[in-house]
Parts: sequence; C-alpha cells; structure tokens
Amino acid sequence: MSDTIDEFLVTYLTDVHALEQQSIELLEKAIDIAGDPSAQQLYHGHLLETHEQKRYIRERLEAHGAGPSTTKDVASRAGAKGIGLTVQAAPDTPGKLAAFAFAFEHLEIASYELLRRLAARAGDGDTVEIADRILGEERSAADKIAATFDLVVERALQQRGLAG
Amino acid sequence: MSDTIDEFLVTYLTDVHALEQQSIELLEKAIDIAGDPSAQQLYHGHLLETHEQKRYIRERLEAHGAGPSTTKDVASRAGAKGIGLTVQAAPDTPGKLAAFAFAFEHLEIASYELLRRLAARAGDGDTVEIADRILGEERSAADKIAATFDLVVERALQQRGLAG
Repeated sequence: MSDTIDEFLVTYLTDVHALEQQSIELLEKAIDIAGDPSAQQLYHGHLLETHEQKRYIRERLEAHGAGPSTTKDVASRAGAKGIGLTVQAAPDTPGKLAAFAFAFEHLEIASYELLRRLAARAGDGDTVEIADRILGEERSAADKIAATFDLVVERALQQRGLAG
Repeated sequence: MSDTIDEFLVTYLTDVHALEQQSIELLEKAIDIAGDPSAQQLYHGHLLETHEQKRYIRERLEAHGAGPSTTKDVASRAGAKGIGLTVQAAPDTPGKLAAFAFAFEHLEIASYELLRRLAARAGDGDTVEIADRILGEERSAADKIAATFDLVVERALQQRGLAG
C-alpha cells in the first residue's frame, strides 16, 4: 500500500518504465523476424521512439525522487509478474508477431491511460503531458502495425507457394 | 508447412480457437478480481459471448474436417507457445487486469483480422462472416473495458484512502 498519492504515482511510473523496457526487447526481436523491409523499418522507427519514451518516464521517476536502483529492482518485479505479457514467449512467425506487437501497443495504451488519470489526480501536469505525448505515439504505432496485416497474410501465402 | 490454403486456414482457426479458450480463463479470473459490480457484469457478459465465439470457430474447424482431438492438441501447443500471452501470469489488481484484458482483446482483434484476410483468400465466405461478427464483438468489449479506466483509478485511490 502507498502512503501518499505521489508514492502511488511512482508505482504506476515504475510499471510503465518496465513496460518500455519489455517493448524494447520485443521490438529488437521484431526487427529480426519481421521478414519484410517495410515492417522492419516500422519496428525500427518505433524502437527509437521507445528508447526516448523510457527516458521521459525515467525523468518523471527522478522528479519524484525514485533513484535508479529502485527503478531497476521494481521494474524487474513488475516485468516478471505484474504485467503478464512476456517477451520471452513472443511468437516467431511474422503473423503472430504482428498480432502480439499490436496487443503489446494496446497494453501500453491502457497503462498510459491509467497513468494519465492518476497523474491528473495527483496534480502532476508534467506527467500528464508526457503520458499524452506517448499515448499519441503508441496509437500511431498500433495503426502502423495494423496496416501491415494485408502484407503479412500475402507473405505467408507466398512462403507456402499458395499465393496467386 | 501447409500443403493447401485450406490446411493453412485450419492452423489460423486452431490458433483463434486456442485464444478463445485463453480468453475464457482470463474472463473467469477477471470476474473474481474486478472488485466492482459494473466491471464484473461487463466481464461476465463478454464471457458468455466468448463461449459462443469459441463454438462458432469450432464449427468452422469441423467444416474443414478438423476433429476434436486435433483441435485440442494443437490448441494446447498454440496456447502455450505460439501466442505468448499467458493467463497464468494475468495480473491480480483491477488496474492491471483492465490493462491486460484491453490488450488481450486487441490480440484477438489482430488475430481475427488476419484470419479474415486468409479466409477471403481461401474463398471461405462463412469464416469471413464469422470473423467479421466476432471482430465487432471484440471491438465492443475493448471499448467497454476502456470505459472502466476512470472507475479503476478512482477505486484504487479509495482503497488507499487517497480519494477526495
């Protein structure tokens, strides 16, 4: 249990920080197995954006007095147990990868929607602003992943000699 | 590798069948831990819908000659390894539950978007129709989950004595 709303906000910030780390691992894997240059480019672009998002959240954690070691420890716990999406189990075909990455973007969208609301209640306008900015980027990434679905199915058919 | 487009379509149908089974397990857990009557009602309503979706997909599998034992075996494999979202690791607080359930709906949305495209290429109009119907239901469920985010944050604050 958190004693103050600020301490509670730090647990939310810690969770999205862990989520950004998981996202980095997923996107690195996605670049390897996307199997198509335009999809690889999409995942690479979002990887750069994700590193930046993680840095912004780290800065918000620091603004609330949460040091690097706290962040790291709690992030590991949240990543392993709290969030329930494990990148280790990420799929190894472009089709399942696209579906998984689309779901992961929506896990981030939901998490930032919650963070945004809590930050507003805590009067932390800087975190509200960061959450809004990142929400826009995650929604845009999700849309771009959805735009690959046609290509993903055609590629899978081609690989099996079933296109035409 | 699949020899025919029909066999390939059966692998997609098998995956969404496994996903519906995972969804049932998640929603049963969600009803237990939602902690709010309106959220419980939402998850319960979608659970009934999900049982029906699973039955529709089972019928499409049977139409393609995939028997119950094949379905069951391959479903376990897909559930454990292929999809990468494990309900065992589902979160145990209403906030993380809502974020996870929102992400899971989008895993289903992406999977049915892919299934729909493959079924169209395979000339299986019945599966296209079922996929469209289920897509509408999953999108509606995702919207309803998103509509709980305000409540989820307020409840979490109340539980910690931080509301007011």
